[in-house]
Amino acid sequence: MEQNISQAVIRRMPRYYRYLGELLDAGVERISSGELSKMMHVTASQIRQDLNNFGGFGQQGYGYNVQFLYDEIGKILGLNKMHNVILIGAGNLGAAIANYVNFEKFSFRMIGLFDVSEKKIGNKINNLEIYSMEELPKFLKEHRVDIAALTIPKEYASEVAKKLVDLKVEAIWNFAHVDLEVPENVVVQNVHLSDSLMQLSYNITQK
Amino acid sequence: MEQNISQAVIRRMPRYYRYLGELLDAGVERISSGELSKMMHVTASQIRQDLNNFGGFGQQGYGYNVQFLYDEIGKILGLNKMHNVILIGAGNLGAAIANYVNFEKFSFRMIGLFDVSEKKIGNKINNLEIYSMEELPKFLKEHRVDIAALTIPKEYASEVAKKLVDLKVEAIWNFAHVDLEVPENVVVQNVHLSDSLMQLSYNITQK
Repeated sequence: MEQNISQAVIRRMPRYYRYLGELLDAGVERISSGELSKMMHVTASQIRQDLNNFGGFGQQGYGYNVQFLYDEIGKILGLNKMHNVILIGAGNLGAAIANYVNFEKFSFRMIGLFDVSEKKIGNKINNLEIYSMEELPKFLKEHRVDIAALTIPKEYASEVAKKLVDLKVEAIWNFAHVDLEVPENVVVQNVHLSDSLMQLSYNITQK
Repeated sequence: MEQNISQAVIRRMPRYYRYLGELLDAGVERISSGELSKMMHVTASQIRQDLNNFGGFGQQGYGYNVQFLYDEIGKILGLNKMHNVILIGAGNLGAAIANYVNFEKFSFRMIGLFDVSEKKIGNKINNLEIYSMEELPKFLKEHRVDIAALTIPKEYASEVAKKLVDLKVEAIWNFAHVDLEVPENVVVQNVHLSDSLMQLSYNITQK
């Protein structure tokens, strides 16, 4: 049932998860798709359709149990497991990502920082020491690493991605402005900031 | 002809722009949709369909003129105009965004940095001084500001967005992990990092 769900639906799930988390924090126990629809500015039918992809969760006339739905979506998103993350490139963006305090809450744990700059190696971000890239193979032997975040200039990204793949890293969170060529078993999630800015520029232009 | 184009198509346009820019840098003058298809790992028919939304640009049997297509997509994305950008929140993420060297090339210019922290006010990032939030109204009177980037914690984002809207800023590039409620004439483009990380986590889980 969880197979072949479109990435468009998947892209919307974290937003449901976020709103349900806020409802939980506010002590709300049940919510109808109509109420959720108003909060999230999407149609109730869209909500029902999206959640039906995963088998529903709602009881006719009773709405959704917020805690249950939150937990189930969390499981769908794989947030019931802790993911160990390393980061390559300890510049400003890397520091921002490493400091990201929500990581822990959202089941992600930053366990290693790497850089090539002599100036940065040995410094700490959020109590984690920055290692040289030479230490990467040893680190990967000694730690389970689920995700590598790439916050390096695009000129180096392909080379570093290849190295990560050779060292059996199977998921890359890529901030470098380039599309990485990786084998099929490696998952890449891109955050291309300038693509986002161009989309904004388009929407300004169309007004 | 440029009306009512889906955001899915728009999301793909910056990627075309990026590949065409690389082809230009490499001195390539013409390219067929088939060749572009191989480079970009999308079908040639998808490429033709996407570009037909904007009136085509290709000549049967001759492929696309790279420079022409690059310029036209640039115009569609509004990149033929310079956009003045300010940034609210000069932390690590803000510094990363402010340093984003491609801004200039891509027709975006960072012209003002703002923060509430006494420690940061007066410091410089990339030769721009960080101002206090109290100076924002005066700054907005004296400068044309096209986009405000919000790199602040989500607790403050709604309040600051409201202030920006009151001061007639009409486009927000939002990095705060919250959906902003703004009037219809204001464009918001979100970069929700943890949504992206959760999508990655989902794709890992599905493997």
